[in-house]
Amino acid sequence: MALSKKPVKGMKDILPAEMQLRDYVLNLITETYTGFGFSHIETPCMENIGNLSSRQGGENEKLIFKVLKRGAKLNIAEASTEADVVDFGMRYDLTVPLSRYYAEHSAELPAPFKALQMGPVWRADQPQKGRFRQFVQCDIDILGDASCLAEIELIQATTTLLGRLGFAGFEVCVNDRRLLKAMAAYSGFAETDYDQVFIILDKMDKIGKDGVAAELKEAGFSAEQVETYLDLFTRLEEAEDKIACLADILEEILPKEVTDNLSLIFSSVQATATADFKLVFDPTLVRGMSYYTGPIFEIKMPQLNSAVGGGGRYDEMIGKFTGQATPACGFSIGFERIITILLEQGFQIPGAAPRKAYLLEKGLAGEELLQALTEARAEREAGVQVLVVRMNKNKKFQKEQLQKEGYTEFREFFRQKK
Amino acid sequence: MALSKKPVKGMKDILPAEMQLRDYVLNLITETYTGFGFSHIETPCMENIGNLSSRQGGENEKLIFKVLKRGAKLNIAEASTEADVVDFGMRYDLTVPLSRYYAEHSAELPAPFKALQMGPVWRADQPQKGRFRQFVQCDIDILGDASCLAEIELIQATTTLLGRLGFAGFEVCVNDRRLLKAMAAYSGFAETDYDQVFIILDKMDKIGKDGVAAELKEAGFSAEQVETYLDLFTRLEEAEDKIACLADILEEILPKEVTDNLSLIFSSVQATATADFKLVFDPTLVRGMSYYTGPIFEIKMPQLNSAVGGGGRYDEMIGKFTGQATPACGFSIGFERIITILLEQGFQIPGAAPRKAYLLEKGLAGEELLQALTEARAEREAGVQVLVVRMNKNKKFQKEQLQKEGYTEFREFFRQKK
Repeated sequence: MALSKKPVKGMKDILPAEMQLRDYVLNLITETYTGFGFSHIETPCMENIGNLSSRQGGENEKLIFKVLKRGAKLNIAEASTEADVVDFGMRYDLTVPLSRYYAEHSAELPAPFKALQMGPVWRADQPQKGRFRQFVQCDIDILGDASCLAEIELIQATTTLLGRLGFAGFEVCVNDRRLLKAMAAYSGFAETDYDQVFIILDKMDKIGKDGVAAELKEAGFSAEQVETYLDLFTRLEEAEDKIACLADILEEILPKEVTDNLSLIFSSVQATATADFKLVFDPTLVRGMSYYTGPIFEIKMPQLNSAVGGGGRYDEMIGKFTGQATPACGFSIGFERIITILLEQGFQIPGAAPRKAYLLEKGLAGEELLQALTEARAEREAGVQVLVVRMNKNKKFQKEQLQKEGYTEFREFFRQKK
Repeated sequence: MALSKKPVKGMKDILPAEMQLRDYVLNLITETYTGFGFSHIETPCMENIGNLSSRQGGENEKLIFKVLKRGAKLNIAEASTEADVVDFGMRYDLTVPLSRYYAEHSAELPAPFKALQMGPVWRADQPQKGRFRQFVQCDIDILGDASCLAEIELIQATTTLLGRLGFAGFEVCVNDRRLLKAMAAYSGFAETDYDQVFIILDKMDKIGKDGVAAELKEAGFSAEQVETYLDLFTRLEEAEDKIACLADILEEILPKEVTDNLSLIFSSVQATATADFKLVFDPTLVRGMSYYTGPIFEIKMPQLNSAVGGGGRYDEMIGKFTGQATPACGFSIGFERIITILLEQGFQIPGAAPRKAYLLEKGLAGEELLQALTEARAEREAGVQVLVVRMNKNKKFQKEQLQKEGYTEFREFFRQKK
């Protein structure tokens, strides 16, 4: 078969300059999150196909790269469906593997357990600009803590990280799935219609209240329901303390602990924040995944349309693996998006080691070679990055290439003419 | 389908203590190798199946995890062979992807190019103790340098790394495929028999010279050939300067540059070494892969039977992708084996940040909660890893669990009784 120079369709090779930035950011993530007591863990990139097809992954389950069975287990000629020929799949996120990991290892781990995961995931999406079929996800999760201390720590850790990366003036939007549902119930929507209502509500920032009202009516909801619902959002816009306002309105159908919980998250995060960001209560925030059960959050950058991170509480997923209810809450940052933004900004890595190149004339040997190698050893021990490399005939071009790689200083070693 | 708690057969989950060690070692690898001017790069974990089946991978090509085609390209009911249903495969090493990467990107990279790769590879081996079907490989390669400066730098970088990890008294064994072939030619073996001869020679350290002689005769080689061959090894054992001795004996069939080259590697590495190791010329060293074309090396630890690293020059592989000959030389360390050894030795990570746990009584709120969060923030800013977590009913057990994770100091925060 002919050899192909290109990477697999929709996946990408990483060149040295980008890799250096990725390494820097990954290290900063590890340092920041372990500073908050998160333990770095890892699971294999493949999972049993049954785990990936358990409806925890939503739409992502349609995008699985599946792995062919091997050896005697495989009989292609007689196979009729995918299930006949597949046993494993590439993970499409880090949440399903984390749930399995915790079910398997919880006896060996402290409770509550704070997990940090960073690693590639795969989705067989249609490739498009800036969107790849292999990409790195970076998740923190707190398992076994039902209290909002989990939410507070997740928001503090994530915003501290973004602050250290130089981001400022961003927004962390917060809502709660229980509030979303109570607002829908208050307006007279049936529970079976919630998902449909929320999909339309989610467009609020694009189409506005009138747009949402129009789409809800178009979907067949009554004028009264729609009016009550939109009126809620108008009253919230005008309220000084939105959470207290909602607690009042929904007093009879929403347990007070839901709004108390949100208020405690707001007051605690605001009082102890390390980064420059706004914590915003956003009653229109929906988050796609239906597995969320409590507070949900999303990070928005002023200069970008889309989110650079998000998460929420999912108290029911782990129990599907363990058979035992385990409260859980997680926050995922968009690693690839952050790298793209930093590259576009021309981000300079702070504290990068100086880089020197030693160019050695062809045939340099004996004492002359030892001299170069010995000096390189001394500089390396002093923390300089020293490239020792043979000198090309076109020395000028070689230096230009190396300057692009960040080499700022050059030394040349020639044979002594005799 | 039922959910499974276990990882995929033959692959493993990584618990926090091992992950901390892996992160430490990976960081030290990056720091050391970039100090030698290697650029960290990355390729996708999947390759087009044609690239993985191009006979560059030897026996590993039988162990590929293959990826199922998707969508309209897939028709299982009418498929009869693997080729009908597969388009990608998981990489089984980092050398084939590097060759493809260099073919695709050489115009954007300096020449010579020094590459560092660290990442998972997959082999569908029979699982056995200590051997996994997903494992991390760590390779350095120098592309585009035909001179032995490449070998010298690879050996120095690798041994410097091992020294920094605390290893001492190990051996770096060196040979050259051209020497191996010349010794076989000198003894009268036909070129077509070399591979068979080398497979037997490779057992020298286990079965000794008599054993090798017996197996060669059993394989049908003449007594005269076998005697001449073994006599060479006896003469080398007795020689003071083995490389000079071989140069003498093989003078008429081996270009002098081969032994000059080896001698220069020896004198240069020995004079500028940073770690405590012996550089050993081992004329019985074979290395399995037939793609090697020049010097080959292998690292042996005194306390272990098997190698913890190896490599060599492979001047012909890159050209298969580029259509243009590109000299290349690489060194791979056995990352998983090194982690296993360090774990067995109870390796203590130097300079690890102190770890404190704050245990917060359930229901802690308001000023009391802010007090704890504010103190945590201050300690984190001072470089302490602070876990803020709710206090369990069984506080004693919680602390024991946390002590296992390296937490040495505890603070407890209670609600004020009123």
